[in-house]
Amino acid sequence: MLIAAIVHPERKSKDYVCNGMYSHSKKIMMSKDVSEFMREAIRLSINNVEEGKGGPFGAIVVKDGKIIARGVNQVTTSNDPTAHAEVVAIRNACAVLNTFQLDGCEIYTSCEPCPMCLGAIYWARPLKLFYANSKEDATAINFDDQFIYEEIAKPIAERKLFTQQILREEALEAFKKWSESTIKTEY
Amino acid sequence: MLIAAIVHPERKSKDYVCNGMYSHSKKIMMSKDVSEFMREAIRLSINNVEEGKGGPFGAIVVKDGKIIARGVNQVTTSNDPTAHAEVVAIRNACAVLNTFQLDGCEIYTSCEPCPMCLGAIYWARPLKLFYANSKEDATAINFDDQFIYEEIAKPIAERKLFTQQILREEALEAFKKWSESTIKTEY
Repeated sequence: MLIAAIVHPERKSKDYVCNGMYSHSKKIMMSKDVSEFMREAIRLSINNVEEGKGGPFGAIVVKDGKIIARGVNQVTTSNDPTAHAEVVAIRNACAVLNTFQLDGCEIYTSCEPCPMCLGAIYWARPLKLFYANSKEDATAINFDDQFIYEEIAKPIAERKLFTQQILREEALEAFKKWSESTIKTEY
Repeated sequence: MLIAAIVHPERKSKDYVCNGMYSHSKKIMMSKDVSEFMREAIRLSINNVEEGKGGPFGAIVVKDGKIIARGVNQVTTSNDPTAHAEVVAIRNACAVLNTFQLDGCEIYTSCEPCPMCLGAIYWARPLKLFYANSKEDATAINFDDQFIYEEIAKPIAERKLFTQQILREEALEAFKKWSESTIKTEY
């Protein structure tokens, strides 16, 4: 049942298995491989700074023991605030696999994902996530990761970003149509 | 000082002002305009379902009282799990403005942003956020928004996605280089 859950092509929230359940999994890799994959993500992060192409972040996606996609932070060079290393790597990996789900994949990122990237990772539904630097390390060099984590945890009225709900009744029409749709592709 | 903080081109976490501080702002719009902008986001969300192009979500970005970009969910049609309506709208708006920051912009989204999209919004640093359907409404039609919010709030060891930190000491090299870099562009 565990394996079935991991590779199911339409895996959603209910299909995730807890961290601890992996300890006896045959799928766990040798630590040498894990380290070498992370070193590639770290190499990308250092290279990105040295070349002045973006923030000090790199990520790779691994499937069946092979790197299938890479990503570096390119927010300022691509004028895209969503172009963090993990998001770029996920997009590239999905293009390679021709799918919107990273079934059976591992993501290696040189820094603990920010809420945007962690959300992206959950939507991509990989098998495992490895990270190196922590979000506290990112805060120490003046990135907003910790601030955004704190904001997301607050009730909406207490957030620093002005946020207001309006017209819910009108918007529910789209959800009703989705529920009734016979042509939709769920994700 | 309030206005200066809002329009500062390199606005980061410290520059956000609280929800309540906007109540006396001259920048607050007439509610009729706000409703009409949201109706456009809702129209996009309904249209996306009817055309079978993706999930029931639409978003727009407004600047100086005009719509500068639109986005709809295109996860399954573009094979990109990050292609939620808000992310697509932010990317489009940044392309229009030729920048990686949505200074002075308002985002209207037909549903409360998931953690990925809320993170993207914080990184884009708009002035205001309006939403219609709630994340509970999204959960009711089987989307993972609430699940991901709950996962992000948990300690890493308790999350359902296997997550492990390794090689932090090696990865810190990139952060050290970033701190010392003279060619970096901060964001």
